[in-house]
Amino acid sequence: MAFYALIMAGGFGTRLWPLSRRDRPKQSLALVGGRTMFEHAVDRIAPVFQPEQIFVVTGAEHVDSLAAQAPELPRENFIVEPQGRGTAPAIGLGAIHLLRQDPEAVMAVLTADHFIVDADRFCQVLAAAAEVAEDGHLVTLGIAPSFPSTGYGYIKQGESLGGAEGFPVYRAERFTEKPTLETALHMVESGEYSWNSGMFIWRVGRILKEFQRQMPEFYVQLAQVETTLGGAGYQPTLNRVWPEVVKQTIDYGVMEGAEDVAVIPVDIGWSDIGSWTSLSEILPTDREGNTIVGPHVGIDTRETVVFGGKRLIATIGLEGMVIVDTEDALLVCPRDREQEVRAIVRQLDSEDRGEYL
Amino acid sequence: MAFYALIMAGGFGTRLWPLSRRDRPKQSLALVGGRTMFEHAVDRIAPVFQPEQIFVVTGAEHVDSLAAQAPELPRENFIVEPQGRGTAPAIGLGAIHLLRQDPEAVMAVLTADHFIVDADRFCQVLAAAAEVAEDGHLVTLGIAPSFPSTGYGYIKQGESLGGAEGFPVYRAERFTEKPTLETALHMVESGEYSWNSGMFIWRVGRILKEFQRQMPEFYVQLAQVETTLGGAGYQPTLNRVWPEVVKQTIDYGVMEGAEDVAVIPVDIGWSDIGSWTSLSEILPTDREGNTIVGPHVGIDTRETVVFGGKRLIATIGLEGMVIVDTEDALLVCPRDREQEVRAIVRQLDSEDRGEYL
Repeated sequence: MAFYALIMAGGFGTRLWPLSRRDRPKQSLALVGGRTMFEHAVDRIAPVFQPEQIFVVTGAEHVDSLAAQAPELPRENFIVEPQGRGTAPAIGLGAIHLLRQDPEAVMAVLTADHFIVDADRFCQVLAAAAEVAEDGHLVTLGIAPSFPSTGYGYIKQGESLGGAEGFPVYRAERFTEKPTLETALHMVESGEYSWNSGMFIWRVGRILKEFQRQMPEFYVQLAQVETTLGGAGYQPTLNRVWPEVVKQTIDYGVMEGAEDVAVIPVDIGWSDIGSWTSLSEILPTDREGNTIVGPHVGIDTRETVVFGGKRLIATIGLEGMVIVDTEDALLVCPRDREQEVRAIVRQLDSEDRGEYL
Repeated sequence: MAFYALIMAGGFGTRLWPLSRRDRPKQSLALVGGRTMFEHAVDRIAPVFQPEQIFVVTGAEHVDSLAAQAPELPRENFIVEPQGRGTAPAIGLGAIHLLRQDPEAVMAVLTADHFIVDADRFCQVLAAAAEVAEDGHLVTLGIAPSFPSTGYGYIKQGESLGGAEGFPVYRAERFTEKPTLETALHMVESGEYSWNSGMFIWRVGRILKEFQRQMPEFYVQLAQVETTLGGAGYQPTLNRVWPEVVKQTIDYGVMEGAEDVAVIPVDIGWSDIGSWTSLSEILPTDREGNTIVGPHVGIDTRETVVFGGKRLIATIGLEGMVIVDTEDALLVCPRDREQEVRAIVRQLDSEDRGEYL
């Protein structure tokens, strides 16, 4: 079996502003262990994929930085989108590149902005998922939920489809969007749900058929690009077609309406480092529940994230706060409002203060 | 009448850390109007005092900086304490220097760390107070309280002693320490109390008699220094005597036990910029009650002091907070806990992190 990885490494990681910036997006931040998120993403799949089997889809503005972080990957394996159009088009573009490598290819769609503690088990489940995908299933990795998150989507496990390499496999009965806390509590207690990790394993031909069926307009656009692959017409065609592609996520555009979707629930210590609080969950905490990076002095400070650098950060009487200090910008907000960092970024953009973006 | 000013400009201003530092104390900070507190203190009394009549008592580590801020003052008018011993010894040392200028001198003890909006009226009341002091009273400037502060001491007005230059003068019946909020409310409502400004006007001979009566040990020490004034023995004597001087405030050491104390209550827009909140009271506020210095972007931020500089400070969902950003240190705390900045400074000191002090 020809098994390929497609690492999605576009985006900005707005919610990690002010650390993440347009020219220093989340996947290029060394948040954990002194290595960037992208370096982690490439390194942890080395037992499963040769460098030539690892493809990356990203934006033109990030490709040089990412290539420098993973010099072992062939430069031509970096697939560049003229503009980000959401996960569905990114996966579609990756799929036609892999189809050209091998019409029978199985592809694993992976992310560069998630953290995975148990890389060994992750590699095992990828191999298992590839077997299930060979049979024609659209496989999604489900994450055994460790708490009733209202920030993730959930997948309901249906009938058993047996197992692969020791992992149980279920039919994915339903995808649900981010739930309320009450719903999340019920779902976690039932034991029938896992988090939607955004990682998928399927045959290239199989996902392209789904695009044809569920996103026919995009499929036609993709076919125009596909005919030019490897030729001089590729880049001009992509540049012409891509701005017309409608933005769409793979969940909404394909998965929710697909058949033969399988879910493999697995516990791999996965977290979506989508926010400062989620970062604090994988970094060490002190006795007061604080996550402190950089020089700090505190009085009566609890459950607070202090992500600094060179400067001393002094805190008094804080609980559940987030403080992020960078060279030219500083953020102070309560943990339960950190989602609004996006609004700060929008406001800076609208006020033409792009120097902070 | 020979009228002199003695500006007390020692100290550090711990509560304004991290802006105030050992080598950049409060009196050298340009907090308001682009001029330092010391520059304000010297400038506003120019209508009353010639430069030769203005003396400054400070520490050796600050004298060069202060002299540079007020080059019009004769260098010999800077009286240097080997160590800070509190306000009583500082005033005593100033008094013997002024006694040598003129045994009949009246001195105004002024501060370099208070802000005064109405400098004209301040100069008028100084002239009035000098008249009252000529009669032998120890005059203290009382500040008409604008709110029930629990951070200031209060002076109770007793019987009327008439008036001077249009200002009513009262016998000071009692000095009280910082009150509880309940007591403060009663005092402000009664109309019989004013804040203790820490500014005094008296004849030099009169205050020295009080030292002799109430602080006899210090008076003897002071007399030893006094005999060496203007000679080669002055500095060695001061250096020998001063470490043995007991620390004491003028309020506790002299004023509370003194007779013939007069108070002149006056409204001069005075504030003790002793904390970030008190600074915010004299700086402009926005519609949400925020005091913002430096680049800022905020969402749902109220009653918050953001004292920054070059860096952008982004705030979300804050109420009643203080954020102070400097080149190498940052403070985040609620306004009602800013007094604990002192504890941060103590902790840094005890942990040998003097680079931040």
